[in-house]
Amino acid sequence: MRGASGRSWTTRRDDKAARLSKVAEIAEGRILPTDRIVEAMEKLISAGDRVVLEGNNQKQASFLSASLAQINPDHVNKLHMIMSSISRPEHLDIFEKGIAERLDFSYAGPQSLRISQMIEDGKLVVGAIHTYLELYGRLFIDLIPNVALVAADKADINGNLYTGPNTEDTPAIIEATAFKDGIVIVQVNELVDELPRVDIPGSWVDFIVVAEKPYQLEALFTRDPRNITELQILMGMMAIRGIYERHNVQSLNHGIGFNTAAIELLLPTYGEQLGLRGKICKHWALNPHPTLIPAIESGWVESIHSFGGEVGMERYISQRPDVFFTGSDGSLRSNRAFCQVAGQYAVDMFIGSSLQIDKDGNSSTVKSGRLTGFGGAPNMGHDPRGRRHATDAWLDMITTDDLLARGKKLVVQMVETHLSGNAPVFVESLDAIDVGRKAGLPEAPVMIYGDDVTHVVTEEGVAYLYKAESLDERREAIAAVAGVTPIGRNQNPRVTEKLRQEGLVALPEDLGIRRTDAKRTLLAAKSVEELVEWSGGLYEPPAKFRSW
Amino acid sequence: MRGASGRSWTTRRDDKAARLSKVAEIAEGRILPTDRIVEAMEKLISAGDRVVLEGNNQKQASFLSASLAQINPDHVNKLHMIMSSISRPEHLDIFEKGIAERLDFSYAGPQSLRISQMIEDGKLVVGAIHTYLELYGRLFIDLIPNVALVAADKADINGNLYTGPNTEDTPAIIEATAFKDGIVIVQVNELVDELPRVDIPGSWVDFIVVAEKPYQLEALFTRDPRNITELQILMGMMAIRGIYERHNVQSLNHGIGFNTAAIELLLPTYGEQLGLRGKICKHWALNPHPTLIPAIESGWVESIHSFGGEVGMERYISQRPDVFFTGSDGSLRSNRAFCQVAGQYAVDMFIGSSLQIDKDGNSSTVKSGRLTGFGGAPNMGHDPRGRRHATDAWLDMITTDDLLARGKKLVVQMVETHLSGNAPVFVESLDAIDVGRKAGLPEAPVMIYGDDVTHVVTEEGVAYLYKAESLDERREAIAAVAGVTPIGRNQNPRVTEKLRQEGLVALPEDLGIRRTDAKRTLLAAKSVEELVEWSGGLYEPPAKFRSW
Repeated sequence: MRGASGRSWTTRRDDKAARLSKVAEIAEGRILPTDRIVEAMEKLISAGDRVVLEGNNQKQASFLSASLAQINPDHVNKLHMIMSSISRPEHLDIFEKGIAERLDFSYAGPQSLRISQMIEDGKLVVGAIHTYLELYGRLFIDLIPNVALVAADKADINGNLYTGPNTEDTPAIIEATAFKDGIVIVQVNELVDELPRVDIPGSWVDFIVVAEKPYQLEALFTRDPRNITELQILMGMMAIRGIYERHNVQSLNHGIGFNTAAIELLLPTYGEQLGLRGKICKHWALNPHPTLIPAIESGWVESIHSFGGEVGMERYISQRPDVFFTGSDGSLRSNRAFCQVAGQYAVDMFIGSSLQIDKDGNSSTVKSGRLTGFGGAPNMGHDPRGRRHATDAWLDMITTDDLLARGKKLVVQMVETHLSGNAPVFVESLDAIDVGRKAGLPEAPVMIYGDDVTHVVTEEGVAYLYKAESLDERREAIAAVAGVTPIGRNQNPRVTEKLRQEGLVALPEDLGIRRTDAKRTLLAAKSVEELVEWSGGLYEPPAKFRSW
Repeated sequence: MRGASGRSWTTRRDDKAARLSKVAEIAEGRILPTDRIVEAMEKLISAGDRVVLEGNNQKQASFLSASLAQINPDHVNKLHMIMSSISRPEHLDIFEKGIAERLDFSYAGPQSLRISQMIEDGKLVVGAIHTYLELYGRLFIDLIPNVALVAADKADINGNLYTGPNTEDTPAIIEATAFKDGIVIVQVNELVDELPRVDIPGSWVDFIVVAEKPYQLEALFTRDPRNITELQILMGMMAIRGIYERHNVQSLNHGIGFNTAAIELLLPTYGEQLGLRGKICKHWALNPHPTLIPAIESGWVESIHSFGGEVGMERYISQRPDVFFTGSDGSLRSNRAFCQVAGQYAVDMFIGSSLQIDKDGNSSTVKSGRLTGFGGAPNMGHDPRGRRHATDAWLDMITTDDLLARGKKLVVQMVETHLSGNAPVFVESLDAIDVGRKAGLPEAPVMIYGDDVTHVVTEEGVAYLYKAESLDERREAIAAVAGVTPIGRNQNPRVTEKLRQEGLVALPEDLGIRRTDAKRTLLAAKSVEELVEWSGGLYEPPAKFRSW
């Protein structure tokens, strides 16, 4: 179709039609035969295409990614890959093989070392590293995909999809592709006559292929309470007393890790002793953490919206629809895009951990040669300056009487002063600066910027950074809780004493907490087995977490 | 269903089942008869419910809102309404009648005067005023709806929905309700056997009702080029030369208004003279502005993702799928949630207008007794501190050599120094402070905070605020372009001269622009009729914009 200018305005649509016609003899309706997927992909994907591959941090379109790696690079090459998570070896193999050339991504946990090496060796050109939400945003702006390769549980022959508990990134990826004349190929575990519910309408989907085996799914958010230490319990008590209670935190996100798992397991015990049930921590944006089961069962939790699912939690969730978001079939509905929006804008607090924090409070999980990327933490762990509604916790961050003063989100960094190998967390300068320079990044890969952090919790105490009136005061407050690290050794005991009196720093005793009370007996569950008990047998942990 | 604790975990699901059974004799399958909608709503909605009503800034579920206003307040009352936009009289009538009591919203343009009065009179309790995106976020956290009342173009008897060009808020609202055992009631213009495409799967929908007449739809984003002034053209030239070109702006959002309409119409003329086609302004997050047609036809625009549709643009869009997001049926796919995410995180620049700016650069559209709310501007018009990918424009905002320095989004305020009634835009103190106090808001309703603003453009010149090294310098730069206003009169000519030399302020002549060149002849289209010509007759403006 050509306008008055003589140019065509339907090049994408025409190109799609041409590609579809090439697989007409392979496909039966919308179904691609499993054993001809590589051949079909060679016809449906063109050199230089932008291909978005799912690739999120739990669910992997593993059959499609393995098939992509088998494509002949003489025919299909120079692909520009867009992936929220680089998790599987073939995600990088395709670059080694010359099938793909350019990469935009969010997170590369399991492949962080290899990706750094490949960038240094010039085998891979990184466009940028993103948070999940900004990567989704760019799918509608300047990273519009030509092809989407995604994973679902079930499909019917009309292409309707059931993504069930692990909906995650799928709706965002498919929407950006389907509505811009891109090609959407979905691997499913099963083709069925009737779906439990429809998560994605068939009119957004071009092809279904039944995968050789179910898509890969990782239990990323399960933490065994056995590994929670008494230092973490102490920190958890300080967080509950010194932050959650003090600022009346109603809604929150917990990052992944043992620190926040400790808090989850302290709510029904220590939190109960403080009389806080029904008063704080009612609304959550987080994956279905098994360590939250005791708090749910004890009546602490009103609602949870989830980014993704968690292996083993399916049956428990389906029996707790008052708490979780579930579909008409009873199983979880997760949605990473909306949960990130909620986690950014709609909760009082983000609390997470880090591997390094510098003297100003900047932090990063990037260390020596590992380009891990960002995931969702920076999106939730910053002061959302576009937010306009207020809550008690938000308003509590105001420290001036300026008529235009605004609140802040609580952004809490919770770390032990040293990592398990005894490396200090508090350092003069972040490794991220060097790693970023080597990778040719235009900005150092900082996870959370110091001026967004409102509180730091360590085993030493709590630093109330939002009260600091200058950068110097912020530094002093950080040093006061930084223990025997390069930063902590700078602390001046008289300054720390002054900060305590002014309320910028609180030690456990300032919060009415005795260090000797921080015992594992305080945990509502001390093992995965006890979590299963709390759940009435509904939680079914993966084998690797079973010790009985 | 009860757990070991004896409590039920399915109260919402059970309650929904009970409500559905009450309308069993009214509904035929999923279809509610048009003439029994009030009766059905009285059975499906309970006192104290959270009801989300669509209510966005263009599409109105007008049949359902009118029906809601007919409900008997003795049976259904104390509703907590959640609406992205307060647009119709009955949106407030329900409060006068005692049906509703509490309100959370984003925008109240057409009803802003009445809402302020009702708050003062205690007829209405406002929870908070939000940006669209944070309101969507809260639907998944602490404002989970019991009932959603929404509008779609067409449905089939299975409840599948076609929202077509005006998808807007619908997916976000329905998802939050449907997956938390809420009740989703949809008014449609038509019930059909086969939908052009499915935008919302039927398994997310409980009831369909065919409306008495099609839903209300406003052409909010149409600006008649006839009303563009030469001052606006001058400002537009300065913006293109002094901001778009200088910072290599690739992707952007234009706010609503004549200022940005002028820019859209200058790209194919003045922009072309500067040789900028294909170099800037390629990717857009915005509604389908008719004034963008000449730029599209001239090959300036690679892609547009839209919050909503625009009346009259449907046929043009369906013939330009290389540019717009369209479905398999050829018509526009809009999605306010994703477009807000993209407009926040994925574009180089936001440029918008305001009614008042104070000496520090804080701005608001709230004036004397009018509580207009926020809409989407604060979400796009702030420095998104959770963003981690860099672009040229982003990096251009860095003014230090700090190793951890980060870029910024360009947030541009473009205003004439005086409003049409000659009231100054630049004022000592924002009316928002008083309006907020009277409405009992915990924070003054500031649209965009001064420290987020990187540039101010007036007919006097451009202030490059991102270069200011102190609050004093920011104030000086603002005063330098504030003309004969209370703020502009404070300017010291010697300081302004210094700011020009240091590049903090540019007058037209500093940008190589002659004021006398700013003529209406520079506009690529000088009337709606010429826009229609540019579109090859595909743009079909509503009657009120036709003068021929």
